[in-house]
Amino acid sequence: MRGIYFDGKELTYREDLEKPILTANHSIIEITHAALCSTDKQIIKGYKPDFKGVLGHEFVGVVVESEDANLIGKRVVAEINEGCGDCYYCNNNLEKHCLKRKVTGIHNHWGAFTEYLEVANHLIYPVPDNLSSEKAVYTEPLAAALEITDCVHIKPSDKVAIIGDGRLSYMIVQVVALTGAEIYLIGKHEEKLKNFKPFATTMTKAEGSYDFVIDATGSPSGIETAKKILRRRGTLLMKSTYAQQLTTDFSYFVVNEITIIGTRCGPFAPALKLLAKNKITLPEIKYYDLKDYKKAFTDSGFKIGFRL
Amino acid sequence: MRGIYFDGKELTYREDLEKPILTANHSIIEITHAALCSTDKQIIKGYKPDFKGVLGHEFVGVVVESEDANLIGKRVVAEINEGCGDCYYCNNNLEKHCLKRKVTGIHNHWGAFTEYLEVANHLIYPVPDNLSSEKAVYTEPLAAALEITDCVHIKPSDKVAIIGDGRLSYMIVQVVALTGAEIYLIGKHEEKLKNFKPFATTMTKAEGSYDFVIDATGSPSGIETAKKILRRRGTLLMKSTYAQQLTTDFSYFVVNEITIIGTRCGPFAPALKLLAKNKITLPEIKYYDLKDYKKAFTDSGFKIGFRL
Repeated sequence: MRGIYFDGKELTYREDLEKPILTANHSIIEITHAALCSTDKQIIKGYKPDFKGVLGHEFVGVVVESEDANLIGKRVVAEINEGCGDCYYCNNNLEKHCLKRKVTGIHNHWGAFTEYLEVANHLIYPVPDNLSSEKAVYTEPLAAALEITDCVHIKPSDKVAIIGDGRLSYMIVQVVALTGAEIYLIGKHEEKLKNFKPFATTMTKAEGSYDFVIDATGSPSGIETAKKILRRRGTLLMKSTYAQQLTTDFSYFVVNEITIIGTRCGPFAPALKLLAKNKITLPEIKYYDLKDYKKAFTDSGFKIGFRL
Repeated sequence: MRGIYFDGKELTYREDLEKPILTANHSIIEITHAALCSTDKQIIKGYKPDFKGVLGHEFVGVVVESEDANLIGKRVVAEINEGCGDCYYCNNNLEKHCLKRKVTGIHNHWGAFTEYLEVANHLIYPVPDNLSSEKAVYTEPLAAALEITDCVHIKPSDKVAIIGDGRLSYMIVQVVALTGAEIYLIGKHEEKLKNFKPFATTMTKAEGSYDFVIDATGSPSGIETAKKILRRRGTLLMKSTYAQQLTTDFSYFVVNEITIIGTRCGPFAPALKLLAKNKITLPEIKYYDLKDYKKAFTDSGFKIGFRL
């Protein structure tokens, strides 16, 4: 089958990839839409040195093979963490933290920049009929944003600053806006900040004092910006993962009694619900053919994807 | 008056220090007992480059001057953070985070390694008659330990690891032990670990998986040890403040959705209550005369103090 393959050093387009074989309690999904995420770019930069295979973890497809007859022919999305099913984490509704987990397109499991993908049945969610595949491909990043309000109670009376003017911030700003809180978006790129004006006060300078600060910069600089604007006893939500080490004055967080919460993947069901109810504004994705992966990976447009 | 003075570079014993003058809503306390804390040693190493004056923030004394007649002659302890009284933090019961605060012996306010100390009346707590001054001098460090259970709910069924075998850990272990939780103490010094055996399983190697990890090492190494033993979605409580920068792989905390909570000074009232009820085991303090400050600052005994 066709796909974009990462050999641990660089990407190549290949047509000789082996199609996955159906195993028990899994389904084979034929990918129709897949989108790029900055994690894909971080992996190429060395963030996951052990990963070799097909990248991609934001996707929509159709189930073509499954033991579960109800799934066959369904248009679906799927969560990306598959646990062992029998450990502390799997037994405590924390499958995404299973120490033996596979993560689609990130760890021990091929991703979606290809024709066929094998996924565990319990991770699969049918896409509501009134939700287009072009929008449903946003389910995974929207779920990651919803993880924030799943982790902390952001009150309508809170002041929240989000650092970073990229795609993840665009989802986060909209999720936080649904709480009614006062939102400020701090970014470096005037042209990108325009996108955020319907939902937040935008700024290029970090100023003010906030109950919550959300770092979605994807770089170590985010934490230094956060320090400048977090109120004492405030909460810093960390969304950024990067290959570099962080160097910082950590005593600052102790003396000012800051709470730092790391958050990763989030819940798919509420994400699909909000998408189907049109509560989230979604820019159009610019689609490429798999063969044009080089152009796709260097295109700086808002959201880039592959249509198969 | 006599006192141990830090000029920003080194300590000296002086007899020519100016006695504080009583101001409105404050009292003058004649110090009888004061104890050394590792923060004092950190300040000498450069942790608070702006501080000049008398060190010391753990003390017991007698009120000798006050507009409040009820306080005069009382044996007392006192909290150390004095806010401006009219800001977001002061108005929200977070005086210790007031941006204009003075901190006894640490920031903009002389400390207790001297004869007389001026303290705001609302920070003063009378010592119960049945509690000796030798024990009451532990109020401040015990309060700092209680801040942990003030910040997070540690359940009887939780597994808790405390890193560091110093004095603060000794208070923390006992406070956490009162919850009924399973406690492990990780330290480097076999001879110090003996002190902890009545309250915790002691270890020199970091192993296992814990719901809560408390870093009381006072050094950047604590956070690396914590990473090895925190369960995913676990909570790291940070007690360590130090002058050095921390360098670490911060993505670890994001991917594993760790919560990090900085905690500092704590509540005096419950600390005095637990001390008066004999719920906390307190080693004897080895007392020095102020003149012998050099010996005191280099004595590695469990708890060192000055008797005036």
